[in-house]
Formats: sequence, structure tokens, C-alpha cells
Amino acid sequence: MTTLQDCRTMDAQDPLRELRDLFALPEGVIYLDGNSLGVLPRATAQRVARTVTDEWGQGLIGSWNGAGWFDLPRRLGDRIAPLIGAQPGEVVATDSTSINLYKVLSAALHHAQAEAPGRRVVLSERDNFPTDLYIAQALCRDRGFELRLVDGAQVQSSLSTDVAVVMLTHVNYRSGAMHDLAAVTTAAHHAGALTIWDLAHSAGAVPVELAGAGADFAVGCGYKYLNGGPGAPAFAWVHPRHADRFEQPLAGWWGHAAPFEFTPHYRPAAGIARYLCGTQPILSMVALECGIDTVLAAQPLGGMAALRRKSLALTDLFIALVEERCAGHGLALVTPREHARRGSQVCLSRTDGAYGIVQALIARGVIGDFRAGSADGGTPDILRFGFTPLYTGFEEVWHAADHLQQVLQGGEWRRPEFNRRHAVT
Amino acid sequence: MTTLQDCRTMDAQDPLRELRDLFALPEGVIYLDGNSLGVLPRATAQRVARTVTDEWGQGLIGSWNGAGWFDLPRRLGDRIAPLIGAQPGEVVATDSTSINLYKVLSAALHHAQAEAPGRRVVLSERDNFPTDLYIAQALCRDRGFELRLVDGAQVQSSLSTDVAVVMLTHVNYRSGAMHDLAAVTTAAHHAGALTIWDLAHSAGAVPVELAGAGADFAVGCGYKYLNGGPGAPAFAWVHPRHADRFEQPLAGWWGHAAPFEFTPHYRPAAGIARYLCGTQPILSMVALECGIDTVLAAQPLGGMAALRRKSLALTDLFIALVEERCAGHGLALVTPREHARRGSQVCLSRTDGAYGIVQALIARGVIGDFRAGSADGGTPDILRFGFTPLYTGFEEVWHAADHLQQVLQGGEWRRPEFNRRHAVT
Repeated sequence: MTTLQDCRTMDAQDPLRELRDLFALPEGVIYLDGNSLGVLPRATAQRVARTVTDEWGQGLIGSWNGAGWFDLPRRLGDRIAPLIGAQPGEVVATDSTSINLYKVLSAALHHAQAEAPGRRVVLSERDNFPTDLYIAQALCRDRGFELRLVDGAQVQSSLSTDVAVVMLTHVNYRSGAMHDLAAVTTAAHHAGALTIWDLAHSAGAVPVELAGAGADFAVGCGYKYLNGGPGAPAFAWVHPRHADRFEQPLAGWWGHAAPFEFTPHYRPAAGIARYLCGTQPILSMVALECGIDTVLAAQPLGGMAALRRKSLALTDLFIALVEERCAGHGLALVTPREHARRGSQVCLSRTDGAYGIVQALIARGVIGDFRAGSADGGTPDILRFGFTPLYTGFEEVWHAADHLQQVLQGGEWRRPEFNRRHAVT
Repeated sequence: MTTLQDCRTMDAQDPLRELRDLFALPEGVIYLDGNSLGVLPRATAQRVARTVTDEWGQGLIGSWNGAGWFDLPRRLGDRIAPLIGAQPGEVVATDSTSINLYKVLSAALHHAQAEAPGRRVVLSERDNFPTDLYIAQALCRDRGFELRLVDGAQVQSSLSTDVAVVMLTHVNYRSGAMHDLAAVTTAAHHAGALTIWDLAHSAGAVPVELAGAGADFAVGCGYKYLNGGPGAPAFAWVHPRHADRFEQPLAGWWGHAAPFEFTPHYRPAAGIARYLCGTQPILSMVALECGIDTVLAAQPLGGMAALRRKSLALTDLFIALVEERCAGHGLALVTPREHARRGSQVCLSRTDGAYGIVQALIARGVIGDFRAGSADGGTPDILRFGFTPLYTGFEEVWHAADHLQQVLQGGEWRRPEFNRRHAVT
């Protein structure tokens, strides 16, 4: 049995432990939902206040240049780049993940139409994050493509000659299962298809080597492991070999080669800048910058490789503790045990009660989240726990498992107050 | 001659004067650029700080429901509605103006394809704001439509039988000229076309009666006269008769009928909510709410009608003062003299020196902006001055004209430091 003292020893030996001080964690909370909304960095409040009071309040319109607002999408993109295996100048922080997916999928379909007109299929995973599927459905319908959905394990064997684009989320939002980005990209290219990777649950959580894998397009989220705050702008990356070749249809002035010439005809900027569209929400952008900086703060301590080591140690520990302490309570591990296939979360399923268990844990200060299964029962209800190596400690994992055991043993999760449903994100 | 004392009397008699106290205006600045970026409301800093520190920092993921983040696009839309002649439930605050224009134009083109397949033209104005033209170019190209551009005065006479959609900006960003929204809408409908209005320079500045005019679609900006802060989210309105009938292609999960069921198939929400796409930047959203509230604060004092009266008095005064004091200096009035055709700004042209004049004024604390003319000289360089009745006083107008006179008389605008160009917004 793993003891509390074992966990304290792991914390004491954790080379990343000091990074927790970068965050304003609430007292009495064990936060295992950083895969949904990252914790507030300590630097953010002051940075946002400065932008509101000084840059906007005093600098007014002059701050577009004077405070560098106009450059934020590219500057933040440059800071995200090393976290995803990209180079400066290849990434922009902008808009939402859904919108960026629309842009890159549209560009990929233009590519297919130009160079492989026989390929009319976008291949994705049946339980991809829904918004990805919705965006692809709309775009495929408008462009005369077919969205073909298969099980995650069947992606590579489904690479038929009619596939134009493989569009996947790297780490599944429900299960925490991770695709082999490099292997799928290689297989897709071998089959003549392009790849689009949604890094929503990857950027800042697991090492990603987009250029190393030779991937084509990627998008990702600013408010999960990048700690950018609620609804922080997302990001888009396009491999330089494609960046200048295709336009995306959200062709607004921020993506123009010379936006302040105010010419009536669109002339796309070179490179990734053409994936910008309209004016960006600056208050949310500066908060995103503080969030990215918390991940970059790990660079001198080993960077994404060190974060990954700790992430796996945290999820290994949680799995072990749950199996040691909650056996016989009907929990099943959904997240892959194999390291190479696991993101930075642990998901458990239970045939009933998952919602109440999550609510009972939240009442105890252990914040995870619930994801409903499919109505036909094909997919079970899920208890989802995200582990953020920047701020989650091993002792917290011990207490989280301990609370879970208590909630299950005492039947606490059956209480009515834990079973009134409302919308969750 | 209008005297300083005349202007002070106008201020003393101004029924809206108290509204200025809602804003944190910098000392020593006469800000005539609220048509580009509105001034910081006093309430905003504290509201944003609370969202960062309490709602995000303490409430974390629970604030999506607990602090009402998830409802912000609709709640803010309901607050914008009375400012544009719409009803609650018809407007959403979300994304950027460019992106919202893409959504509504796409829906309008679906409408045309379904009901008037012979109509393949989007009619717009040659000097519409460029991003509107860029978005329309891309969408027309992808959908097989033609974007036809005419002079503003020729719009109604260009309503031929092949026009599907008339897409116009209500108040021109350069000239300040205002279309007759009701008359153009009626003429367009009479000719069998739909209308899309960009209210970027209208919402919060001039009365707009979308429903009264029977308009079809509208978009607008949150960071100009709505004082929402740099890059504040924009808004979209769709007439209820169209709202449920067409989908827009940015079909992300926030526009789904039941986003938290996480079903793989898109089912659009009823009404305007289907014009939402992805997660919204909450820090910028709460700042927008404070901005809208400054305009709503005028409601007990006469609302948009009272704001309009003061706006016209301000622009009338500025025109009169410039003509009295700056005659013989080569300035020409670009903005229409006729009230019914004037927005809330005054634009002056000059064959040379406009850039230096604007910079010299900025150095004196009078902030307007410069808009370059066309390279072929067909459109002149412009000095643009926005008048925001919420916070601009008549005495300020006097001083602005006085500074302009001094800059012109002394040749100050010729100084090299006022003629180094950089990007402006």
C-alpha cells in the first residue's frame, strides 16, 4: 500500500515543486480540473490590471502600438511554439479552437481540391471532441466532402485512398487516451492524406513535436494546460510548407498583408499571419501570456520532458491509489495504462452514480468533473481527473484518492444534493 | 464667432453631462477617437479584477455556472438589443465583427440559394470597411457569388434582379457618412434582396431601429461606442423570421442546442444562439458588459435619442469652429453636413499634411486619427475626429478646434517628428 508519507517524499523529491508558487490556488481545494480550466497564475491579476488601467485607461488608442497589443497574436504564438515542437513565426494565438479548426480544415480541403481531387473524405474519430466534429460536418457539407468517423483504434487501418484529411484530437477529452502523433502522421502521409491535430489536451501537458512528426496543421486551447484564463484565445499552427500556399476563408483584416493600407482587396499576409481574422480580445490575450509563461517557467527545470515525467508519476500514483483503496466499488479505469497512450488525466467509469460521486468530491474540495456517457449506454458515464504537473502535488493525489474512498464507502454520493443536474463545462 | 463661453454654456445646459463621471479619462487629453477605441469606464477595472481574482482564482471551473460566464454572450446581447432596436433574445455578443459578418453573410447566402437561386450578387459599397469586403470576397468565391461594389450613393439604383444580399456599413468608417438604414432596407426588400448592416460605427452612437426597419441581419463592434475595451467581443443580430431557418458554418459547440450532451451530431440551438461557436474570452466579455452599461446609463436621461441630439450638437459645433477658425488652411469637410446623413464623427481632408496634423494634435493631447487616402489619389487623406456624447464636452470641442488652428497657423505639423509613419489602428 502506498502511504501518505510515500507521497510526501515524492513531493520533497519533485524537481518541479517550486512551480506551484506561480499559482494562486484557493485554500482547501485539490484542483484536478486543469484540463478544463487552468488555475490562475499569480502574475495575471496585476498584468490584466495594468492593461486595463494604464494601457487602455491612459494609453488609449496609442496602446495598439505603444503597448504592443497589435503584435500579441504573433508574440504569444512565438511563446507557444517551443511547447508544441514548432518554430517562432509559425504559430498565432487567436480566436477559439473551433474557429481555428475551421480555418485550418478549410485550408486543408483547398489543398485536397487542388492536388488530390479524388479524395473527398475527412477521417476522424467517433468520440472526438464534439465541436471538432460539428465544425467538420458544416465544412464538409459546404464543400462536398464526407466526414467519416471511426473508432480511435481504427484510424490507421481506415486510411483508404479517398481520405483527404485525418483530423484528430491528440489526447481524447473523455478518456485521456493519446494518439501516437508521429505514427499516425506518417501513416496518413504514406496514404496520401494530410493531418490536422487538435492539441487542446496536449499543449502544456504532454510533449508534442509537430515539426518532428512532419504534421500539417494543428490547433489548440489557451485555457486548459496553458492557464490562460476562462475562454482564453486559442492557437493555430500550419507547417511552413503549407502556410503560404492556401488561404482560409475567415479572411479578415488582421490576416491581410498590409491591414492599415485599408485596400479593398484581400491580399493574405505571408505565413501563419494569414490565419488571423479580426481584432483580438486584448484583456484575455494578456492573461494568456501570463499563463503561457507558467509553462515556460519549467524550461530551465527540464521543460516539457520534466513535466511529462511528473504527469505520468501523478497519474500512475492516482491509478495505484484508486486500485488499492477503492477496489470493489465498481470503478473501472478508462484511461490507458500504457504510458505512451496516456495523456495527463485519469478517467474512471461506473455504471451508475458517477455524477453524484463527482459532486460529493467537489463538496469536499476535490474538483474533478463528470462527463455523461451516451444515451444508448454504449459509452459509460465518466469521472474525469486532470493532473497538472505545474501545480498538482503528490500529497494532493493521496488525499484525492482518500476522499474518493470515503465518498464511495459511506454512500455519500447518493445524497439528493449531489444529484441535481445542471450544465457543466 | 462661437466663443469659449458659448461652449461652457452648452456644457452647463447638457442633460447628459453627468455621464462623463462614468469614465476614467486621462488628465490633459481631449479624446476624439472613441469611434476607434472607447474610453475606459470607471467600473471596469474592479469588475475585471473581481472576475480574475474571485471568479477565476477562487471559483475556478465552477464559475462557468456560478458566476454566469456561460450566459454572458446572451446576457450581453440582451443589453445591446435596446440600443439597436432589437428585442432580448435576438442578439449575441461574441467573436469579432469580421467573424460575425462571415456567419450572417453565410446564412444570407444559404437563404438566397434556397429561395432565389438566380440571385448571385452581393452588393456593397466600394469604400466599405475593408474587412467586410475581404470576408465577402472569400465567401462569395467559395459559394459561387459575385461581390459587386458601387459608390455609396449608387446603392439603391444598383438593386438589380441578380442581387441576393445588400451588405453595408451603416456609418462609413472614413467619411462618417450614414446610410438611411430604413430606406435602403425597404428598397432592397422591394428589389427582392436581403440586407446585412454592419453597425460598428452606429451601436451606441446613433439610433438604430433594426426591427422597425425590417432589416434581416446585423453585426457590430464592442470596442468603439460601446466602450468594451481593446478587442472587446462583437455582436450579431438576426431577425427572428430568419433565425431558426438557416445554419451558419462556424457550427461550434456553443451554438449547439445542448452543448453539454456532447453528442457527435450538430443540432443548432433555436434562435440567435446558433450564431455562437466556441468558448468566449470571459475577461474581455465582462469588460464589455461594463462598457454597454455606460450607454444604458443614458436611458433614464433620454437614451439614444438624447445621445443623438448631443452628438449632432457636438459635430455641428466642431464643423462651425473649424470653418470659423481654420478657413484658408486647405481643410475640406468630408462628413455630410446634413444631419440625417451624418454619423458621430467629423472627417476633414487635406491634399497634404493630414498625417502630420494629426500627430501634432496628438502631441498636444487632442487625439483623433489619420486615415490614408487611396494610392491613386481618388480618395484623399483624412483627419478623423470621433465625438462620443457620453464623455465628450462642448468646451473640449472648442479647445480641439483651437489646437487645430494653432497647429495649422504655426506650421507645427511640418515638423519631422510628426511625419514618421507607423501602423495605426
